[in-house]
Amino acid sequence: MSKKTPHSGSINPNLLGAISKPLKLNAQEYINGILKGDKVILSRAITLVESKRREDSELAQQIIEGCLPHSGKSLRIGFTGIPGVGKSSWIESFGKHLITVENKKLAVLAVDPSSGVSHGSILGDKTRMEELTQDKNAFIRPSPSSGSLGGVARKTRETIILCEAAGYDTIFIETVGVGQSETAVKEMVDIFVLLLIAGAGDELQGIKRGIMEMADLVLINKSDGDNIKRARNAMLDIKRALHLFPLDERNWTVPVITTSALEKTGLTETFEVLEKYKRHMVTKGLFDKLRKDQNAHWLKNTIEEAVLSRFYNDPSIATEYPDQLEKVLNGRVSPYTAAQNLLKKKD
Amino acid sequence: MSKKTPHSGSINPNLLGAISKPLKLNAQEYINGILKGDKVILSRAITLVESKRREDSELAQQIIEGCLPHSGKSLRIGFTGIPGVGKSSWIESFGKHLITVENKKLAVLAVDPSSGVSHGSILGDKTRMEELTQDKNAFIRPSPSSGSLGGVARKTRETIILCEAAGYDTIFIETVGVGQSETAVKEMVDIFVLLLIAGAGDELQGIKRGIMEMADLVLINKSDGDNIKRARNAMLDIKRALHLFPLDERNWTVPVITTSALEKTGLTETFEVLEKYKRHMVTKGLFDKLRKDQNAHWLKNTIEEAVLSRFYNDPSIATEYPDQLEKVLNGRVSPYTAAQNLLKKKD
Repeated sequence: MSKKTPHSGSINPNLLGAISKPLKLNAQEYINGILKGDKVILSRAITLVESKRREDSELAQQIIEGCLPHSGKSLRIGFTGIPGVGKSSWIESFGKHLITVENKKLAVLAVDPSSGVSHGSILGDKTRMEELTQDKNAFIRPSPSSGSLGGVARKTRETIILCEAAGYDTIFIETVGVGQSETAVKEMVDIFVLLLIAGAGDELQGIKRGIMEMADLVLINKSDGDNIKRARNAMLDIKRALHLFPLDERNWTVPVITTSALEKTGLTETFEVLEKYKRHMVTKGLFDKLRKDQNAHWLKNTIEEAVLSRFYNDPSIATEYPDQLEKVLNGRVSPYTAAQNLLKKKD
Repeated sequence: MSKKTPHSGSINPNLLGAISKPLKLNAQEYINGILKGDKVILSRAITLVESKRREDSELAQQIIEGCLPHSGKSLRIGFTGIPGVGKSSWIESFGKHLITVENKKLAVLAVDPSSGVSHGSILGDKTRMEELTQDKNAFIRPSPSSGSLGGVARKTRETIILCEAAGYDTIFIETVGVGQSETAVKEMVDIFVLLLIAGAGDELQGIKRGIMEMADLVLINKSDGDNIKRARNAMLDIKRALHLFPLDERNWTVPVITTSALEKTGLTETFEVLEKYKRHMVTKGLFDKLRKDQNAHWLKNTIEEAVLSRFYNDPSIATEYPDQLEKVLNGRVSPYTAAQNLLKKKD
């Protein structure tokens, strides 16, 4: 595949017109623009993906299908970490490193269903990533601002396809680490990175149970100044804890790296680990397998959400469900029998 | 509630007749027998619960509904541990302790969908729990021998209801710790216990990722003879590892106890922790809440399994699904669009 340079500068007059007075492009025009790496058209296509209007959705779906054969060539990296770990600064530092040193083209997306109400999402506050936002080789897009986690996750997955077709070879998917969004992100990336900082012996306070086990790589940020020793101790503690947990079929020992967004340390090391992980997975035949599994899972999920939503929204079920649930909670009927009572209504 | 003594000795002639020549009891006769603590009738009722015949299922459901108001009074304890940790001997020792020292009535059940092919399930091999099997205050029942995990889990949940109605105040649900059965067990018990042994610094090898995070109590078995020091070191290692992981809303620090089935040590301590956990959960209002959540979840699961099974077994879907999946896996269509193609067939 030839490397395309995403460019925001050279918009053709036709498109400038499209911006000042929204001219309707057809699906093929969108696809062509995206394949040329046009950021304005890419942005507008993502807006269609995120739109709740039926005609927008139909157009978006055509664009996605057209981009699909040109997608899949990036490394998809998930990032999570609670507010306070300095995630936005770290992504900015690492992103600049990827672009300037490693010659990468970077798209930064987010899955944050709650970003309507600000939870400290870096991408809800673009000014925090000023340098990256202005870089011609970076494309920053905040999380769809509303909707269920499932809806937001789908839109982000589809946005990944568009960004890959536009030539971005590295995709960050960021999540603020509240609710179930980490699991959603884990299911759409090749590698999942957990960002922590060293605290007073309780590095992991505030992190949800189970997150540590999802990580393929752990970073300890703010390893600078007075904090270096503390970060190093945290690294050893976490390595020891991780060592007690069994390896899965990938046989990958999760690395723990100390890093500093401020002093720009640990960035090369992080990049090398990402590359190493990819090689490791490719060699074992697991890289493509994981993506195929994710796609099969996504197909299944989409179907099941729709089928169940139809069932629960059926008027006879919607009326009767609360009654049956109450009987179950009061111990007056077993869950199985209550379920049969409901299922009978739709036989 | 008055304590009932489950008894296997005093079967009335009517019932002896029922055994030699299977006499049909009606639902009320089953319920009465169970409420009297009759082990033979309880066993036969469980056989109905496990039966695949439609008429048996209907009778079973009536028995379950009749027992439901008399259920719920036990402490439901899940046990997991890979083969080799000495789970059967430990359960036998602890079970005897509960019955003789703590005056409990114990039912031991299992969730082991693979027990048709022996995976070392203690309950598939009853001779291993000889003493307990013969105790009048113990009731041992192997896992339903075939069926999906969902099916086996449902039958075990229903068996819990029957055992509680029969007066058992302590229920063990054992699983061999392969596949997804631990999650199924976790969702039907009040407290989940992980049994380990000390190895050479890799105590947790062989344990699936995520199991440690499910445990409410960790036991290190075979802490006897030359092994005591090693077990103690393993305990410290695991405590340290667990300490790094955050507490959830229960605010319960998972205890790690060394024990020996052989020398009968750690049994009193284990019992005290179980009681302490129950008090802790009751005090926080979480004991009943967890059970209600489990029942609501069971209702939802039963419905969703049935609804999805109807969808996937619809001839038009069953035919088309493999084609759409293949297109998704080959990158020719996006998962979302493939899902829409399938969903359209059932509009």
